[in-house]
Amino acid sequence: MNRLNEREIIDLFISKFRKISKIEKDDIVNLPIKVNNITIKLILKCDMLVESTDVPAGMRPWQIARKSIVSCISDLCSKGIKPYAFLVSIGIPKYYDKKNIKDLINGFFLVSKEYNVRFLGGDTNESKELVIDCNMIGFTTSHIPERKGAKAGDLILVSGEFGYSASGLRIILHNAKANNTFKTKAVSCVMKPEPSTKFGLKLAKYFSSSMDSSDGLSISLYELARQSKKNFLIDKYPTSKAVHNFAKTNSYNIDELVFFGGEEYEIVATIPESKFRHTIKMSSKLGIKMNVIGKVTAGNGKVFLVDKTGEKKLLNEKGYIHLTN
Amino acid sequence: MNRLNEREIIDLFISKFRKISKIEKDDIVNLPIKVNNITIKLILKCDMLVESTDVPAGMRPWQIARKSIVSCISDLCSKGIKPYAFLVSIGIPKYYDKKNIKDLINGFFLVSKEYNVRFLGGDTNESKELVIDCNMIGFTTSHIPERKGAKAGDLILVSGEFGYSASGLRIILHNAKANNTFKTKAVSCVMKPEPSTKFGLKLAKYFSSSMDSSDGLSISLYELARQSKKNFLIDKYPTSKAVHNFAKTNSYNIDELVFFGGEEYEIVATIPESKFRHTIKMSSKLGIKMNVIGKVTAGNGKVFLVDKTGEKKLLNEKGYIHLTN
Repeated sequence: MNRLNEREIIDLFISKFRKISKIEKDDIVNLPIKVNNITIKLILKCDMLVESTDVPAGMRPWQIARKSIVSCISDLCSKGIKPYAFLVSIGIPKYYDKKNIKDLINGFFLVSKEYNVRFLGGDTNESKELVIDCNMIGFTTSHIPERKGAKAGDLILVSGEFGYSASGLRIILHNAKANNTFKTKAVSCVMKPEPSTKFGLKLAKYFSSSMDSSDGLSISLYELARQSKKNFLIDKYPTSKAVHNFAKTNSYNIDELVFFGGEEYEIVATIPESKFRHTIKMSSKLGIKMNVIGKVTAGNGKVFLVDKTGEKKLLNEKGYIHLTN
Repeated sequence: MNRLNEREIIDLFISKFRKISKIEKDDIVNLPIKVNNITIKLILKCDMLVESTDVPAGMRPWQIARKSIVSCISDLCSKGIKPYAFLVSIGIPKYYDKKNIKDLINGFFLVSKEYNVRFLGGDTNESKELVIDCNMIGFTTSHIPERKGAKAGDLILVSGEFGYSASGLRIILHNAKANNTFKTKAVSCVMKPEPSTKFGLKLAKYFSSSMDSSDGLSISLYELARQSKKNFLIDKYPTSKAVHNFAKTNSYNIDELVFFGGEEYEIVATIPESKFRHTIKMSSKLGIKMNVIGKVTAGNGKVFLVDKTGEKKLLNEKGYIHLTN
């Protein structure tokens, strides 16, 4: 059977609608509204969570609800946009009883308070598995970094350390060995992800390009490189000693955890070198984690790992593999 | 098991969020935005279509896609709001091949052109069955009729004749007998619904309350009556001789077809009597179908059928029954 993957489906959409409207492949939709000569950018985002592919065993309904909203929060924040409000459409399976539904609603309530984002309403339905589509809006008048804006010479930044969510999934699904501290952090990264909101909200004005890393670090780097028509050279693994140890203990390839995981809700961005000093100052003043992992060069959408000797190796373009695949 | 129906779930949402925000139970979300002392109403709507409950046998992917968008168009138009643009989140099952996906995308393309509403983007996922969540937006500065605005003395209007969609479903699912003309019209009502956009867009400024009838005529009348804290007296069956004949031929109860069907995408509204003459003029000038079916009286949310002798009979509050229930 001639099945398509997500990218092929999106490309079909873009090519079909090309004649009547230009659709940007980006984290958010930016819709400028002119009122009395003032232009406000209305930001729209929808993101669907599907039980069979996005929910690992043991995740409680309130955590599932929370995650469905957090994934949109992450996308808006990666562009420097404060999430303002959301609607949810929910498909609820027959095996969800009143207790589960109350727990689910509590998740929406908690995340709404946690991130100060208003719940506006939605739609409920019956379906074969749990499906939650979060529809989030925001407003801005500021610069919005696109995926395609990286320039040669820009630095590549990430908002944190990668590998925890892939490790957490391996602990949950395959009972991988880990000490308690690591286990707690990695499992929490899966069950109760915390997007790097401050990094995006405070620093996006300096970004030449950015996106959230929920599809995986490798996919995100490739996406920015390809849309910007540049090459990305990565000379630092944005991870921790603890993740390295976890990989070693369980004989996992460290690249699998750091580059090919996903659902990490960190931000990947590029900034002009001229703004680097200021960005460092801002982030240290505000207590924002920031990792410089490489540099943008002229090129055609490739991502290379560069070792200490300067040797370049093409990074695999591999992303988050959904649970059921 | 303690399962909940849609209304109970919505009530749980409303009561949970009561402390921090007031959620109106209405067809659309109205979010006023102030820019330079001008208030623009941003209108948001999400509506999820689920294959196992919303798609009858034989419906083609492009028709499914079209229906998922039309249902939002109907909601906005019932409030007099011109649909401006939409996003879609889609869950695509493994049994959808490239041909099906192309047909689905073509449906979004066609409906976008048919109703002049912009496609802005969305999200694609893998799921166990086809799920499409349409997220539609519009803008207005005009009066938006709410569900709760009906006043005693108002007339009750509908935009067309009811019973075709319930008849169509019975023809498709149970092979009910019908002549070719009726069959074509009724089946098309299910497969390619045409919401009464003109009725809503041109007349909503006169409405004291309104909603779209997609949950069924009885449910819609009860919803308006209950939210308005009035009684509704219905003295005319808003249907055709052809539907009566179809009911008779197949020994169906006419009320089942007219009041308890659903997915009809007509509009139910109330208007003050003082605006009736003008509304009639407008609708005849513009070629808009309109049916006066009763009157609003003081009361507490009940709907009565009134026969020619003036005898009142409580209307059953029964709605669209999803295909799998």
